[in-house]
Amino acid sequence: MIFIDACLKKKTPYTPVWMMRQAGRYLSEYMQVRASAGDFLSLCRDYKKASEVSLQPVDILGVDAAIIFSDILVVPLEMGLELKFEKGEGPIFPKPIQTEEDLENLDIQKGVRNLSYVYDALKLTREKLDPSKALIGFCGSPWTIATYMIEGGGSKNYAKCKKILYQNPEFLHKILTKLTLALKLYVEEQIKAGANAIQIFDSWASALEKEAFFEFSFNYMLEISNYIKKKYPHIPVILFPKGISGFLDEINGNFDVFGVDWSTPLNLAKEKLASKYTLQGNMEPCRLYDKNSIKEGVEKILDIMKDTSHIFNLGHGILPDIPVGNAKYFIKLVQEKSSK
Amino acid sequence: MIFIDACLKKKTPYTPVWMMRQAGRYLSEYMQVRASAGDFLSLCRDYKKASEVSLQPVDILGVDAAIIFSDILVVPLEMGLELKFEKGEGPIFPKPIQTEEDLENLDIQKGVRNLSYVYDALKLTREKLDPSKALIGFCGSPWTIATYMIEGGGSKNYAKCKKILYQNPEFLHKILTKLTLALKLYVEEQIKAGANAIQIFDSWASALEKEAFFEFSFNYMLEISNYIKKKYPHIPVILFPKGISGFLDEINGNFDVFGVDWSTPLNLAKEKLASKYTLQGNMEPCRLYDKNSIKEGVEKILDIMKDTSHIFNLGHGILPDIPVGNAKYFIKLVQEKSSK
Repeated sequence: MIFIDACLKKKTPYTPVWMMRQAGRYLSEYMQVRASAGDFLSLCRDYKKASEVSLQPVDILGVDAAIIFSDILVVPLEMGLELKFEKGEGPIFPKPIQTEEDLENLDIQKGVRNLSYVYDALKLTREKLDPSKALIGFCGSPWTIATYMIEGGGSKNYAKCKKILYQNPEFLHKILTKLTLALKLYVEEQIKAGANAIQIFDSWASALEKEAFFEFSFNYMLEISNYIKKKYPHIPVILFPKGISGFLDEINGNFDVFGVDWSTPLNLAKEKLASKYTLQGNMEPCRLYDKNSIKEGVEKILDIMKDTSHIFNLGHGILPDIPVGNAKYFIKLVQEKSSK
Repeated sequence: MIFIDACLKKKTPYTPVWMMRQAGRYLSEYMQVRASAGDFLSLCRDYKKASEVSLQPVDILGVDAAIIFSDILVVPLEMGLELKFEKGEGPIFPKPIQTEEDLENLDIQKGVRNLSYVYDALKLTREKLDPSKALIGFCGSPWTIATYMIEGGGSKNYAKCKKILYQNPEFLHKILTKLTLALKLYVEEQIKAGANAIQIFDSWASALEKEAFFEFSFNYMLEISNYIKKKYPHIPVILFPKGISGFLDEINGNFDVFGVDWSTPLNLAKEKLASKYTLQGNMEPCRLYDKNSIKEGVEKILDIMKDTSHIFNLGHGILPDIPVGNAKYFIKLVQEKSSK
């Protein structure tokens, strides 16, 4: 699997490429399956359909890795925290975590068990997937998941999280510790079910000051990564903390790939991190609106990364209104232009 | 005015301090004036009331500078682009800019003339303000204002702007050039009316890749700054591009103060920029929820900046639900702890 080789800094015949949110709304085939499943959570919970949409971008676009279709918030959901996806509103936890008792009511064992639909989807997908293609499992970072559980949904200023962080940091650490424990077991089950690599999404890393980021987010991600790397050293771990280009000097620890968001200059990330990690990223997703911009972006990025370990990706998820033809052009262009 | 001295890198008896959005909803006195004015735009357009709320934080909190109460979007509004502030929705331009004709319909001269309520508010505020306190005028950066005019309001992915940027960059440059011309005249009128310094807010700087940031945003801010510094060399210009901690190496040009947002590590900004510019910022606004966190934040920042030119501020606007007592405590603490 050239994706896995690139993660582990081995030479590859070309630069492997995939896209965050590649199993998504820009594909009419995805929309059909999604419609047949009903709502978003029903699609996550139907392992056959989840597997089907996970495989679509491999078949349609020829990406080098499939990522299992799911959502980072199924973990608190299955631990017992009610979750709704309201149309146009994003995820809502109607009863956010406010007290120690709210936290105690969440059941790690039950959660990890209830998430069997994710493991079933991974198993089926790994069976159907070409052996040359990698299957990526994933989870959210404890911090990012916690922000939704505390705020009750998406947030602009993370005021509730920050109040806890400043006024009762021990409670925040308790929430994060419990989530970390659940996530270790969750990604371990994903690996047992066939995941070849694990990506940890820290979408709201940028909600924290530098010191707070390392204390409340990065350290917990590393704890998950350390757990995986100790038990499954051949499984690459990809960390993707978004919006922290000012903190790169202090990124360190036992993982394999650092995901670079598009707002971080790639040569800065290369200078700071490429000696230790494979870099993944980081094309600006809106470039996919326009073929000339795709070409310019691909050439620029391949040139920066020509002498170092690299997985090509967008620097954020693909947008729903990108023409499929442009996505295909992008994937093919990366694979062709990077061929040695 | 110790605020102006600090801008110009002169020694000051203590570190001057103010807060972005200091004339705002956390003050009951502001809420009263706002209620009497009707809606938000009516408050902007009533120069007496705008002046009254601009002065409140000086009287109530003892900040070292007043910033004139207004909004960055009054400029396109008065140039002829209809603007609404819907409750809970933020600003809406019902007829966003889509064509060259839409752009041609905007009238620079009329806009600069119609904005007389801002100049009147500045005159009145400067008259009433203690001579030791500075009065800050401001505008949005051409890029940030353009994002609203093109998207029709706030945006998550700036997809419409990006489509223009990639498919028709000349048109985006035309929009930015026209806005820059209007903004030069607008801030010049603000200076004539009594503004002692000008801050340019580039709130959506982080929506751009590095090269695009310099081409489509920073260069236009510099054009405004160059214009001001040439005609009014004693007037400090403050640039505040948000979320670009990865681009600091390349920040250069003729301005006085660089505003550091809270997500940018202050010692990184100091290392890269303090030899050239006074730094303004950058306490995390949620620290104001808690007095211990205020103290910790103030001491940390004063320690980093103890040997270099500094204006204390939050790294983003003050939040509406901050207790006024905490804001007072913050301002006093900065002034006391930094006294030499």
